[in-house]
Amino acid sequence: MPQDQHFADRLAGAIDDAGTPLCVGIDPTPERLPAALTALTTDPAELMAAFCIGVVDSVAGIAPAVKPQSACFERLGSMGVGVLEHTIARARQRGLIVVLDAKRGDIGSTARHYAAGACVIGADAVTLNPYMGRSAIEPFLEAGLGAFALARTSNPDSDEIQSARLANGASVGEHVASVIADLGAGHIGARGLSDLGAVVGATKSSDGARLRAIMPDQFFLVPGVGAQGGTVDDVRALLRPGASTPGELGVLVNASRSVIYAPTEQGETWTDAISRAARSLGDELRSLLQSAGA
Amino acid sequence: MPQDQHFADRLAGAIDDAGTPLCVGIDPTPERLPAALTALTTDPAELMAAFCIGVVDSVAGIAPAVKPQSACFERLGSMGVGVLEHTIARARQRGLIVVLDAKRGDIGSTARHYAAGACVIGADAVTLNPYMGRSAIEPFLEAGLGAFALARTSNPDSDEIQSARLANGASVGEHVASVIADLGAGHIGARGLSDLGAVVGATKSSDGARLRAIMPDQFFLVPGVGAQGGTVDDVRALLRPGASTPGELGVLVNASRSVIYAPTEQGETWTDAISRAARSLGDELRSLLQSAGA
Repeated sequence: MPQDQHFADRLAGAIDDAGTPLCVGIDPTPERLPAALTALTTDPAELMAAFCIGVVDSVAGIAPAVKPQSACFERLGSMGVGVLEHTIARARQRGLIVVLDAKRGDIGSTARHYAAGACVIGADAVTLNPYMGRSAIEPFLEAGLGAFALARTSNPDSDEIQSARLANGASVGEHVASVIADLGAGHIGARGLSDLGAVVGATKSSDGARLRAIMPDQFFLVPGVGAQGGTVDDVRALLRPGASTPGELGVLVNASRSVIYAPTEQGETWTDAISRAARSLGDELRSLLQSAGA
Repeated sequence: MPQDQHFADRLAGAIDDAGTPLCVGIDPTPERLPAALTALTTDPAELMAAFCIGVVDSVAGIAPAVKPQSACFERLGSMGVGVLEHTIARARQRGLIVVLDAKRGDIGSTARHYAAGACVIGADAVTLNPYMGRSAIEPFLEAGLGAFALARTSNPDSDEIQSARLANGASVGEHVASVIADLGAGHIGARGLSDLGAVVGATKSSDGARLRAIMPDQFFLVPGVGAQGGTVDDVRALLRPGASTPGELGVLVNASRSVIYAPTEQGETWTDAISRAARSLGDELRSLLQSAGA
C-alpha cells in the first residue's frame, strides 16, 4: 500500500530490523497443502485461506517480507483473489512488507489500471515484466508502489531470450537492466536505493557481478534459492558494494516451496516446520550479510 | 475454455462465419462509462457488469471475438474478477470467442497455475509475455488453450527493448518471433494455423512483412487500430499469403476504446453506438480481406 516514505527506504529499514533479507514466497498449491488442513475442509478457497494465514503467522517476526504468487490464487478465479486480499491484509497486520508477484506488463493506460488494482489489493510492491517498455513500469512508481522488473530470471530456459547477445556486446538481460537502472534513477530514496528494483535469479549468479555493476542502486529480488537449486552463496555476487547496513546491501532473497512446504520433524506442527525453515534460511542469509561486512 | 478442436481452427471458423476478423476489446474504465448507466447505480462492480454485458450483447453477431482486458477488472480486486467471470460467461453464451488479455508470463510451475486459472475463468485463449522463455508459454498450450505471445507491441516506447539489434542482425522482437514460430510448430491445427499466435501491433506495420515471414503459421492478434493510431490499411502487411478464406489470412484485429466508447449519434442509445462502430470497423476489415483475395 503506497505510503509517504519511499518503498526502498521502508524495505531497507525492515531488513535492518529483521537482520536478514529473507522473503517468504506464498505459493499455495492444492496438492501440497498440509494433511492437518485437508482433514478439516474440502472447500478449496477455505483451505487456501487457512494455509496462507498459517504461513503468514509462522513467518511474521522472522522474515521482513512475503511474496504471494498471484497465479496460485487466480487459479481459483475471483474466490481465489478474495483469499489473496485476505492474505495480504493479514500480512500487513503482522508488519510484513508485501511484494505481489504478478509479473504484470502492459502499455501505460493499462498499467495504470494494474497499479490501481495493486493498491486496492494492499500490495507494497509488485513484480513487473519490462518487455513492453518503460510505460509498463512508470505508472506503478507514480502510484507510490515499489516495483521489481524482470532482468534475469531463475528458470533454465530464460537464456534463449535473456542471454541473446546484442550487437553492442550486452545480453538482452543486461540491456533491460540498463533501462531499469535509468528509469529507477528518478525514484531514489534516502538510503540511496531505488523504488524500482530488479528480479535477478540466484541460479544466474554468474551474471550477477555484471548486473550489479549496471544496476548499483537497485534492490534485487532474488528468486531461485531452495527448490530451484540456487544457494545462499550464490547471493554473494549480487550484494551492493560499500553498504553499511544489511538493508543497504540491496537484496531481498525469496524462498517459497523450501519454506512453506518444509517437512515436519518429530512433534512439530506444519506451522512449526515453516517457522523453523524460515528461521534457518534467515540465519544463513544473516551470516552471509555479516561476512559481507554489514 | 479448452475444447477438443484446435483453438486455431475454431478461431479461423469463427472469422469465416463472421466474414471479418474484428475483435472487440472490453476495457471498462470507470471515468468513461455511459451516463445512462452511471445514473442508475454508483456501485462500481454493478456499473462495470452492466457496461460489459451491454458491450457483449452489442457486438455479438457482428464480431467473432472479444478481448477483455484483465487489468480493468483487477482494478476492483476480487469483485472485479467476479465481473470478469460474469462477462466471459455471457460472451460465451452469445457465441463469442474470448481472448483474455492478461499478458501473463512466469516459469513453468507458475504458468501451470495461470493456465488453470484461465480455464476456470472460461477463456478460450490468453495473451502471454515471452520474456521468461518457452516454459512461460507451453503450459497454456498443454491445457488446450490458445495463446498470443507478445512479439512487437503497439506502444511507441516498446522500441527501446523490442527493436534493439542482436549481433546476428535480427531485432529482439524478431528473435522472440522466431521462438514463437518454433514453439508454435508443434501445435498446428487442420487449417494450417498454430494455437500459438503472436501479438503484433498495427502501429508497427513497417516491421510486419518481416514478422510474417518469420511466423507464417501464426495468428496475429493486432492491437493498436483506432485510439492508438493504427489504421485498417496497416493490417495489410500482416496478412498471411496464399490464404483461401478470411480466417486463414491469420489476423484477429482488435479495437477497444474506439468501439466501446463510440459517441452516440442522434436518437441512439450507447449500445446502438457500440453496434454501429463495431459494424463499421468490421465492414472495413471485411473489405480489406476481400481485396486480399479471401
